[in-house]
Amino acid sequence: MSAKVLVIGAGAIGAFYGGVLARAGCEVSAVARSDFDAVKANGYRIESTLGDLSWRPAQLVHSGADYEGPADYLLVCLKLTASTDPVALIRPALGPKTVIVFVANGIDVDGPVAAAFPHNELIAGVAYAAVSREASGVIRHHSQFTRLILGRYPGGPSATAERLAALVKQGGSSGAATDDIVGTRWQKCAWNTVLNPISALGGGLGTLDMLRSEHTTQFVRDAIGEFSAIAAAAGHPLPGDTIDKLIAGTLKLPNYVSSMGQDQLAGRPMETEALLGNVVRVARRLAVPAPRLETLYALLKMTEQRSAG
Amino acid sequence: MSAKVLVIGAGAIGAFYGGVLARAGCEVSAVARSDFDAVKANGYRIESTLGDLSWRPAQLVHSGADYEGPADYLLVCLKLTASTDPVALIRPALGPKTVIVFVANGIDVDGPVAAAFPHNELIAGVAYAAVSREASGVIRHHSQFTRLILGRYPGGPSATAERLAALVKQGGSSGAATDDIVGTRWQKCAWNTVLNPISALGGGLGTLDMLRSEHTTQFVRDAIGEFSAIAAAAGHPLPGDTIDKLIAGTLKLPNYVSSMGQDQLAGRPMETEALLGNVVRVARRLAVPAPRLETLYALLKMTEQRSAG
Repeated sequence: MSAKVLVIGAGAIGAFYGGVLARAGCEVSAVARSDFDAVKANGYRIESTLGDLSWRPAQLVHSGADYEGPADYLLVCLKLTASTDPVALIRPALGPKTVIVFVANGIDVDGPVAAAFPHNELIAGVAYAAVSREASGVIRHHSQFTRLILGRYPGGPSATAERLAALVKQGGSSGAATDDIVGTRWQKCAWNTVLNPISALGGGLGTLDMLRSEHTTQFVRDAIGEFSAIAAAAGHPLPGDTIDKLIAGTLKLPNYVSSMGQDQLAGRPMETEALLGNVVRVARRLAVPAPRLETLYALLKMTEQRSAG
Repeated sequence: MSAKVLVIGAGAIGAFYGGVLARAGCEVSAVARSDFDAVKANGYRIESTLGDLSWRPAQLVHSGADYEGPADYLLVCLKLTASTDPVALIRPALGPKTVIVFVANGIDVDGPVAAAFPHNELIAGVAYAAVSREASGVIRHHSQFTRLILGRYPGGPSATAERLAALVKQGGSSGAATDDIVGTRWQKCAWNTVLNPISALGGGLGTLDMLRSEHTTQFVRDAIGEFSAIAAAAGHPLPGDTIDKLIAGTLKLPNYVSSMGQDQLAGRPMETEALLGNVVRVARRLAVPAPRLETLYALLKMTEQRSAG
């Protein structure tokens, strides 16, 4: 019998992996809000380098409470802004044996979900996927390098994570299971925690704009260095060549404005706490100096205070 | 015989103090660029709480080379952006006995002028004056608290500074001479070096937006603390209550967007090096840690690199 999956937060990432799992034979449903009508009419249209991943939800619902379950998996793909409450979105759709698959960016983001649902299995996920929402229900998948890494929270081996990774591969994308998903979160944030806030504070700065001189490149290195020291103190040391690889990798790509930079330009809420505030709090707790990250964080908070003030 | 004054950089500050010196009986001329036609027609119109300070230049010229001098004083009031070269602007108007009065914001800004004209007396000036350019040749003076502090560079007593301060008072404003004008520059920058870049990086943040929470207020205090340590190491310690006074003073004022914030919003060049870059370089030279100021500086440089890239 095919696995029943409900996607919560069917933005670009959620809709994309919904399509991958549908192609793997799962019965995939979705909770939709602003895209409801478009998806009701046309399903999700996914333009991908992997081929056509378009799919039509088995059930399309306005809220998890309307879903006829129980689901085997809740695929939760949320942007973690101040106004998003994952626990509240998960609760109405959760059966006693439902596995929560929590695909998100940030540090210390899984704890509240794990605490709220101690009897459900929690698989945390880190997605590397260049996808964007082009229109209501229309997702574009830009690049071949795409990977979903899955692991039980807070750590250790998991047959469920292995099974999910196999489904992702079956759907034609790249999936992998890890015993240390929290370490994977730290690795992804080495980029996101530093570059996303810089992009926002520069008014939508591109990645290459940050690296046009030795001086500013050194600053980026120093800031990632702070992050790296925090990760190590938190028990998740990054590989020694992380900074060199990130800089070299960035220089090979186009001048890309990060999601947070785009959010800032558009006046949308940003993942300030998930990406940066939580990291700064870990640094304080572990007494790791992080004045550069503290500065980025204070500046972002000031921009939020302006909107509120 | 009345003193001959040529104002170079007759923006808001220059036109205002030109008017003050004209009222004190000086023969005041001006170099004008974009405002030339308006000033030729109507003179400088200065709407001030001190009364009408409007004045008509004795000579209105396009360049210092056109001035029929020699001037007793060059009143140089420039915004020190990357594209402004004070030495090049001063040179053509300078007589052998002309005193250079260099009213500017920033740290380490006088040295190049002193080095270029070693045989002319150099009086450095720090202006506290809420003035703005409302239109071509039209200046508005907003507040009663206005003061021009003057002193010979790099330090020591100066009869010339005393005489100029007396002229400013005679013109109806507040003028004072100091033996430590470099210390005065550090004092003014305790505010400008920190708050101006923050305002720009927040996309035109107001002063109160920076202080709406304990967290961000503490950041502002920490950043001014770095500045204060640099000033002390440079031999110009700030009074012990500087931070408290700056914060308290700011909280009493409206939510004001600094000139650098306004420049950033308008896409105009900013005084990045004069206000912040030079301070960071002093910190490096004297091995004073300044990671918060380094961060602000790197972020500003990145925004400049974007424009250039």
